Amino acid sequence: MAMTVAELAKAVGGVVVGDGTKVVESCNTLMEATAEQVSLLHNAKYARELDTTRAGCVIVAPGTVKGGGEAGLTLIEAKNAYYAWQQTMVMLHGQRRHESVGISQQAAIHPTAKLGKNVSVHPFAVIGENVEIGDATTVYSHVTLQRGVKIGKETVLYPSVTVYEECVIGDRCLINAGTVIGSDGFSYAQEGGVHHKMPQRGNVRIEDDVEIGCNAVVERAALGSTVVGRGTKIGNLVVVGHNCRIGQGNLLISQVGIAGSTNTGKYVVMAGQAGVNGHLDIPDFVKVGAQAGVMTNPEPNAEIVGTPAMAATEVKRIFLNTLRLPELAKRVKELEKKLGEKPEARSQKPEENSKLETRNSR
Amino acid sequence: MAMTVAELAKAVGGVVVGDGTKVVESCNTLMEATAEQVSLLHNAKYARELDTTRAGCVIVAPGTVKGGGEAGLTLIEAKNAYYAWQQTMVMLHGQRRHESVGISQQAAIHPTAKLGKNVSVHPFAVIGENVEIGDATTVYSHVTLQRGVKIGKETVLYPSVTVYEECVIGDRCLINAGTVIGSDGFSYAQEGGVHHKMPQRGNVRIEDDVEIGCNAVVERAALGSTVVGRGTKIGNLVVVGHNCRIGQGNLLISQVGIAGSTNTGKYVVMAGQAGVNGHLDIPDFVKVGAQAGVMTNPEPNAEIVGTPAMAATEVKRIFLNTLRLPELAKRVKELEKKLGEKPEARSQKPEENSKLETRNSR
Amino acid sequence: MAMTVAELAKAVGGVVVGDGTKVVESCNTLMEATAEQVSLLHNAKYARELDTTRAGCVIVAPGTVKGGGEAGLTLIEAKNAYYAWQQTMVMLHGQRRHESVGISQQAAIHPTAKLGKNVSVHPFAVIGENVEIGDATTVYSHVTLQRGVKIGKETVLYPSVTVYEECVIGDRCLINAGTVIGSDGFSYAQEGGVHHKMPQRGNVRIEDDVEIGCNAVVERAALGSTVVGRGTKIGNLVVVGHNCRIGQGNLLISQVGIAGSTNTGKYVVMAGQAGVNGHLDIPDFVKVGAQAGVMTNPEPNAEIVGTPAMAATEVKRIFLNTLRLPELAKRVKELEKKLGEKPEARSQKPEENSKLETRNSR
Repeated sequence: MAMTVAELAKAVGGVVVGDGTKVVESCNTLMEATAEQVSLLHNAKYARELDTTRAGCVIVAPGTVKGGGEAGLTLIEAKNAYYAWQQTMVMLHGQRRHESVGISQQAAIHPTAKLGKNVSVHPFAVIGENVEIGDATTVYSHVTLQRGVKIGKETVLYPSVTVYEECVIGDRCLINAGTVIGSDGFSYAQEGGVHHKMPQRGNVRIEDDVEIGCNAVVERAALGSTVVGRGTKIGNLVVVGHNCRIGQGNLLISQVGIAGSTNTGKYVVMAGQAGVNGHLDIPDFVKVGAQAGVMTNPEPNAEIVGTPAMAATEVKRIFLNTLRLPELAKRVKELEKKLGEKPEARSQKPEENSKLETRNSR
Repeated sequence: MAMTVAELAKAVGGVVVGDGTKVVESCNTLMEATAEQVSLLHNAKYARELDTTRAGCVIVAPGTVKGGGEAGLTLIEAKNAYYAWQQTMVMLHGQRRHESVGISQQAAIHPTAKLGKNVSVHPFAVIGENVEIGDATTVYSHVTLQRGVKIGKETVLYPSVTVYEECVIGDRCLINAGTVIGSDGFSYAQEGGVHHKMPQRGNVRIEDDVEIGCNAVVERAALGSTVVGRGTKIGNLVVVGHNCRIGQGNLLISQVGIAGSTNTGKYVVMAGQAGVNGHLDIPDFVKVGAQAGVMTNPEPNAEIVGTPAMAATEVKRIFLNTLRLPELAKRVKELEKKLGEKPEARSQKPEENSKLETRNSR
Repeated sequence: MAMTVAELAKAVGGVVVGDGTKVVESCNTLMEATAEQVSLLHNAKYARELDTTRAGCVIVAPGTVKGGGEAGLTLIEAKNAYYAWQQTMVMLHGQRRHESVGISQQAAIHPTAKLGKNVSVHPFAVIGENVEIGDATTVYSHVTLQRGVKIGKETVLYPSVTVYEECVIGDRCLINAGTVIGSDGFSYAQEGGVHHKMPQRGNVRIEDDVEIGCNAVVERAALGSTVVGRGTKIGNLVVVGHNCRIGQGNLLISQVGIAGSTNTGKYVVMAGQAGVNGHLDIPDFVKVGAQAGVMTNPEPNAEIVGTPAMAATEVKRIFLNTLRLPELAKRVKELEKKLGEKPEARSQKPEENSKLETRNSR
């Protein structure tokens, strides 16, 4: 596929600055793009690469570079430059296609399962009793769908996905390799030195247009449903605990963990390795920083970081003061001297020195 | 199944407050329960839901609500209310059943493998040379049991579990989908710029009544055995390093990581995302907080939090002082003014401001 | 296999202290070794076990124990004792062998796939269109290699590994069970309340001699390649984000997460659960502590810990001051009293007390 810069700008709702007649046919980074390629400046960190890029055209936010800059670049200015880039990538490179392969003779499909039109089932998939699969859905190799699972249409289950009994997955979902939907919540009642397993008799309901990364886990509810809302995107190795209700359009980045019975509003974002306590309510548009530990309910729209997680501005202020602590301690000592105080002996215990050593598993 | 409140109370060792003749047939949350349902008040956070619940009966700890409260509820008071609820759930809803399916013709079973009575082997399971499986154990689809693995009786291996050679799993264990038992410990000797792989020639021994969540990993020992003690429950995505000896009745919640050669006592609890250094001894009944980083041996029964992990009470005290640091700094400045000191210029470096930005992977 | 201590010392480049004629035949820990076994003292923590060990021979660094010590032990002194031990383990115990089983009739292999000599393919493996596999490589059960994947020679793909289309894995690699190579990067452009999926049309290139643990994920590049450099070793449940370029000889320990477009130099070490922001450059020989959160580029050779990660020495200094904060606050109060100030009321808010409770998922 090839198109002129002017055609591309029109397609993505952008404005050409420079030569709109140039032809571009693919995308690349600023550093590696050639004259036939489109590139993007999204992160200010890479701005200096504009001086040397050979890209035929660069997508930027309006006003980022004046008139193509000294290098005389051809630009497409777009209000949402990243979205313009996404559209360009789709036009010039396309999304992954899933070949229609029909129903493999090497799959194990229960006679009661109902498969829609144009469903693809790859070798060694296992489809259980009363499973229902919508039109044009792809079930890759080594997927297991247990009894009573319902999958919507145009959904893709990548290799080795396991869906436990009675769970429901919507339309146009992408569930990546190794992810497990509907395993039991971690729930035991301790009595007499024994952890008695709490039955987990609910299910998981994943709404439409959800993508889940690899080797993630969404636990089934004890009763009722664990829900993942429409359009939510979940990264690799994320755990969503039992009875959580994750709202619409959330972004849960890799290795996030959310304990049981926590609800999130719309468009909540959790950065990598964040952890959230159980039984919380995370309101709309909250942003949780990487590695944050959320232990209380944040305010709507809050940006929170740290463990325990607090408003980012507050955490920064405290952090900066912490950096100056050694100096503050010195100043207090000075004051004490001036006032004739004899500072108490505060010998540094030697064992404290070893507490922060780099840890490794050997 | 249906029973009267009086019958239920008797079965769970509780005391009826209110109308014991009511019939209940299932369980639900306080918010959603109907007149034929039992509910539970376990977390004080939900106490106000007692005012509006329509549950036929609520299980509570003794003295939680006086005489059914204003709403005139029927209660079952039980000393261990959560355990009473677990028993109720088992009676009215039951645990998951694993259908007896015999030995699938589509499984690959080595002729030397020894399978007990009533073993179920689902399609595409792979059972290697000299594997032994006890009576009434279920091996789901896509499980791989390598050479010499021994599995006890009434154990369930969910789909896509992999057990490396020579590992041993006890009776009544539940190993959830995607979990790997017995892969090599992370161990290399560096010499000449090369990481030379240390042979890992021990195994893993999982004792009876252990449950392990999804996509977790228990590494095999270099020599001898990595051990998971009887009745221990392990969450999703947990890593237990090589040569660890995890004691009896531990609870290791999702995403915990334990480095090699660490031992734990009885009934140790580690909350989500906690990390534990290698070569440590974690004594009986220690509780490790979520996201804690354990770098030294705690005291028995200690409750530890933070990184490096310390006694929770101590960490709280320091944390509260940290919150007041900006104010403390101001007070020191005041004192200096009063004493005619000229505080040194302590300009805030601008780059420090950016250190705590919300991180995401884009 | 059995050999004399003298033979062993020669083989590992060490020096015998004591009786070189003793015969040893296997390895064990100091605590459990018998007279026919070799042991190792590597971690000073275990030094007192030298007094009671019955090991026939102990490998130590030169000068660790004078002349065999009071117990009259036979020693092999080796400069790199851990490497000497690794060589000993290989000689006496060997690495895992992968039986040559040929091509299983129960595997699904596309007719266009090209398999080298002595390739082993186990039951229920799936090998797609135009896949190429080098000589003597082992593909275990439930592995999926999608269209166009290229695997080198003498590589081992353990059960349930999934490699997405067009990815490349080198020679002598070990990819452990459940690991996924080449799934899509987490990348969406938000517009109109929708997260539009960014096509991920690059691949992953894993160089020679790489080992990856279980249930890890290496995301494919949006364009170009995500690269894992030669000789790098990656632990369990690690996530390497899209477009990362991981250098040669890195050690990324279990549960590490690296966001997209970050590069690492040579011999970088990241301890367990460390997280690294996207678009960073981590120079050669940097050591990142366990659970550290790296948000800015460190210096070459730096040892960094904490969140946000900073030089370990600096973090220690601040941490020690933090421990003394309650006392510092008291001293400031004393000074204020002395100067006739009336300290403001600083009542401890009760809700702050609950912020650091041990979290668990129930």
